[in-house]
Amino acid sequence: MSTSPEQLSTQGIAAGWHPDRVTRVRALLANHQIDALIVPRWDRHHFEYVPLANEWLAYLTGFSGSWGMGILTQEELILFVDGRYQEQAHSQPNAAALQIFHLHDYPPAQWLEECTQEGWRIAFDAQVLSPTAHDQLAKACKSTGATLLPVVDGFIDDCWPERPAYPLSLANVVSDEWAGQSVTTKCDAVAEWLRCSGAAFLVDVLPDNVAWLLNLRGRDLDYCPVLLGRILISDDGKVDLFANAEQLADAERALSERVTLHQPNDFLNIIAKRAKSANTILLDGTQGPQAAREMLERHGIRVLQQTSAITHLKAIKNATELGSMADAAMRESGAWVQLLHWLDRQLDDGLTPSEFDVEGKLEEFRWKIPDYCGCSFRTISAADGNAAHAHYAAPAEGGRLIRKESIFLLDAGGQYRSGGTTDTTRTWCFSEASPEALNDATLALKGHIALAGQTFPDGTLDHNLDVLARSAAWQHYRDYDHGTGHGVGHFLSVHEFPQRLRKEVSGTPLREGMVITIEPGLYRNGVHGIRHEILYEIVAAPQTGWLKFKPLAFVPFCRLLIDLSLLDESETAWIDHYHQQTREQLSTLGLSADERRWLLNQTRPL
Amino acid sequence: MSTSPEQLSTQGIAAGWHPDRVTRVRALLANHQIDALIVPRWDRHHFEYVPLANEWLAYLTGFSGSWGMGILTQEELILFVDGRYQEQAHSQPNAAALQIFHLHDYPPAQWLEECTQEGWRIAFDAQVLSPTAHDQLAKACKSTGATLLPVVDGFIDDCWPERPAYPLSLANVVSDEWAGQSVTTKCDAVAEWLRCSGAAFLVDVLPDNVAWLLNLRGRDLDYCPVLLGRILISDDGKVDLFANAEQLADAERALSERVTLHQPNDFLNIIAKRAKSANTILLDGTQGPQAAREMLERHGIRVLQQTSAITHLKAIKNATELGSMADAAMRESGAWVQLLHWLDRQLDDGLTPSEFDVEGKLEEFRWKIPDYCGCSFRTISAADGNAAHAHYAAPAEGGRLIRKESIFLLDAGGQYRSGGTTDTTRTWCFSEASPEALNDATLALKGHIALAGQTFPDGTLDHNLDVLARSAAWQHYRDYDHGTGHGVGHFLSVHEFPQRLRKEVSGTPLREGMVITIEPGLYRNGVHGIRHEILYEIVAAPQTGWLKFKPLAFVPFCRLLIDLSLLDESETAWIDHYHQQTREQLSTLGLSADERRWLLNQTRPL
Repeated sequence: MSTSPEQLSTQGIAAGWHPDRVTRVRALLANHQIDALIVPRWDRHHFEYVPLANEWLAYLTGFSGSWGMGILTQEELILFVDGRYQEQAHSQPNAAALQIFHLHDYPPAQWLEECTQEGWRIAFDAQVLSPTAHDQLAKACKSTGATLLPVVDGFIDDCWPERPAYPLSLANVVSDEWAGQSVTTKCDAVAEWLRCSGAAFLVDVLPDNVAWLLNLRGRDLDYCPVLLGRILISDDGKVDLFANAEQLADAERALSERVTLHQPNDFLNIIAKRAKSANTILLDGTQGPQAAREMLERHGIRVLQQTSAITHLKAIKNATELGSMADAAMRESGAWVQLLHWLDRQLDDGLTPSEFDVEGKLEEFRWKIPDYCGCSFRTISAADGNAAHAHYAAPAEGGRLIRKESIFLLDAGGQYRSGGTTDTTRTWCFSEASPEALNDATLALKGHIALAGQTFPDGTLDHNLDVLARSAAWQHYRDYDHGTGHGVGHFLSVHEFPQRLRKEVSGTPLREGMVITIEPGLYRNGVHGIRHEILYEIVAAPQTGWLKFKPLAFVPFCRLLIDLSLLDESETAWIDHYHQQTREQLSTLGLSADERRWLLNQTRPL
Repeated sequence: MSTSPEQLSTQGIAAGWHPDRVTRVRALLANHQIDALIVPRWDRHHFEYVPLANEWLAYLTGFSGSWGMGILTQEELILFVDGRYQEQAHSQPNAAALQIFHLHDYPPAQWLEECTQEGWRIAFDAQVLSPTAHDQLAKACKSTGATLLPVVDGFIDDCWPERPAYPLSLANVVSDEWAGQSVTTKCDAVAEWLRCSGAAFLVDVLPDNVAWLLNLRGRDLDYCPVLLGRILISDDGKVDLFANAEQLADAERALSERVTLHQPNDFLNIIAKRAKSANTILLDGTQGPQAAREMLERHGIRVLQQTSAITHLKAIKNATELGSMADAAMRESGAWVQLLHWLDRQLDDGLTPSEFDVEGKLEEFRWKIPDYCGCSFRTISAADGNAAHAHYAAPAEGGRLIRKESIFLLDAGGQYRSGGTTDTTRTWCFSEASPEALNDATLALKGHIALAGQTFPDGTLDHNLDVLARSAAWQHYRDYDHGTGHGVGHFLSVHEFPQRLRKEVSGTPLREGMVITIEPGLYRNGVHGIRHEILYEIVAAPQTGWLKFKPLAFVPFCRLLIDLSLLDESETAWIDHYHQQTREQLSTLGLSADERRWLLNQTRPL
């Protein structure tokens, strides 16, 4: 076996699946008297993205989706995936070699409860599994008399000859001025939080939390400028950073004096050392790791399982962060206007660019922005029926062409070195829309306006606002099967926690200084997908104790997709005001005369 | 000491407070080497109402509110009450004898953590305390080395010479036809639920659950026609009922053959007996009792703490229940129209009836309805500033008079033997309203309409709809500090669980056949209170998988409190349609010619 170019992507790793992979892991398990191995999609960082080197689930099962879990026994290879991925899993080339279950309807814990036997030894990587996941699996094992066995690393690395290299990008320290706050100030805020919780220190494995706290950025992952580090921070504001020293070679001198650097493998040892004088520590139960929790509890230390203090503090952006995020979103809006103008002209000229062409063209316009440094997620450039797929990625060849009669959805975001992460969606058409498309687009727009125009009490729980974006669609028996909005980072993750607008309980109080998307949509399988997404800052309303949304991105809505007969006066006024702001905001961007004319026309009062 | 007439109400028990009460209990505690005694407001049934005999908190602390907790030590008498009751507790005559804390800001568990000492023995009634409450207190005790000691009865009964008699009302069995479902069918449904949960039996202490399951009604409490019984129901659908045999003397022969009657004191013994062959049982952790949970877990039985299956099954009304509830609400609406017409005429005649007069007059009209049998809660008849108090009760003497310039709020509900419990609120005025009242009333009405007119997917979580009723008010920086709606029983509790419309997470999926109120309001301290409440049935919308609200009560809205300039066309149409239904629904009720004219005028199109 040799390294193949297929190893350069998750899809490549999955496509290269061969039964030998499974045979090798089984042999290793047999050597260690292990009866079953738990293989999650995530790694030690519980982040949205994992480096290729940690695509264990793709390697073992050939499944390339973004979420799932595998269990390997000597007899079976089992894959658990959610509703989004049922079709993909069942049609992947090696599907016959798998047992595929629904992650929610028949979760791994239930399989363990029904299919394991007394005396079985079931291995999991205790630096990867979270306490929450561990407890579910442990409870199931207990019921059959099986043992859940923590191991160091998950066995697969040793059976993966052509495993991609673990990322070792050079990290850099950003200035206090750029971040708007010094590391000292941030660490003091976390320390204060810990003292209020009565906790001696906090364990945090989230790379974007590490990046924010230490004013550090890296390039270990696509789409998100982070270093794959983990930290402890104590109630005196001192930080232990666990990361590869070579990645910090350039940055180490600039690191705050609060920070002590350790090799990643010292993580548990240092936790043990710091814990000697601790009664209580904080750790996010959904992240962990279980290895730390187990060790601490064994020594009689109380482990408070809570969302990290850093996740909460990072969510409230400071004035500098908000300023650079607004600036980046405004400049990216210019690229969108150029793209949409270009697309209109292409179709006027009788051309039919492909989805992939449009995706590339947007990149071309964005790379002209001096501090642009890449996408914040894989662009969704989708025409007609393709836009009804949740996470469509246009292929270089064979995607749809955009024609006069197309309904075209573009969902894209960028990373900006001056300090911004963006996320925008527009749906466009180029001739009279079908009644269904016109209706769906207008209902989704009404939902967007109802939520975006809402004033609400400071501290309103995020999920409580979700229904405002659905109300208009529900009156027509229409709904969308995704959340309504998510937090966005400051040159960090485009899906930042903790705030979420969605039906499910999230429970985060909304506060001034948070940044969040609003993105209701409506979809018809095989026909079209419509979504209207804008990035908003949560700002103080004129009356104390009340908040509202202020748009950060300014891209016109497609006039051909607005049915004025469905809008009331206040909704029309909202759109006109947003379009007027769009004209004003983008006036300084140096658009061409033709682009400016196009923008004026698109943003004239309805 | 002798029994006084003051013992006939909670207020009387509280008002009769004397330090001797505390001295007697302290002596008893000392005899038993108890350092502190926990005294909750609730009793074994965890119901909204308790019989006077169980008003332990009122007896010991002189506090007559509906929620709170006390702790008695040899040195201190501590009362914990929530925000609603701070003022009342601090101004009660014996306030100087108490330490008063905020139930949520400084809860009993925190007091235990800070003020108890190693070796302390802290007593609680283990048939009263719920597992949830127990665990919070136990955790606090553990941190100081104190012991939480379960006792039989809470000591106070033995120190209460003039304690009111425990209610022993005769219960009656209602027919299957009246209930719409036989006890056998209901028990089979619970048994099926238990088998699906893998539980051998369910412990249920809620008297309205007992009443519903066994087609049984009683008169043990004011406002709610129940017998204070507790039950076990097993996975073969057999029921152990724990209640006083003398109360069932008339009913025993009619009781289902599924039911075995036991004396109340056999409760724990029978649980122990039934548990011998059980692995798992169900018990509501917020109700308990802790005594059962503790005993079961000690014997290695798994106790699933979940909302009772009966609470869930009872919430979905059958066609008979829905029919009689609609009929009762419609007939009660007639009494409301008579009352409002009478009130209008009184003021036209230059009279100024008191709040208490109006409350009495409503009773007079309601008692003319043949099957009316009393209020479902104490009527709130409140003029102007009094209506801004959450649970105002008009005094017989000294309440406000209703004048031409008053804003008058009436919130009342009835119990109907033919099968109905109702709850309605209207706010009325008699001359041009102040701009503030007009604005508040119209905003609250817009909220009511937005929610009542909403179509929503089957299974939408109840709390997700709450914001629709607040949205209009929020745009004007106005809000109300109470829930938006609650379930209502079938000749049972007016505040029935599990469904709740409110900001806080409730998490109950809304289903066809549920009955629920919608009641947004707006309040100005010392000035006025406004609320618009209608009882609704949740019905199927024309499209499969979608639900909507159908009004059950029909009382006009006060036209002088509607600012048409704030309503859009669809809102005006909603009111006109509701008023048209009101005319039609009440046309058969035998109103007088003058009442009919008044109704026609009140319900003419806006």
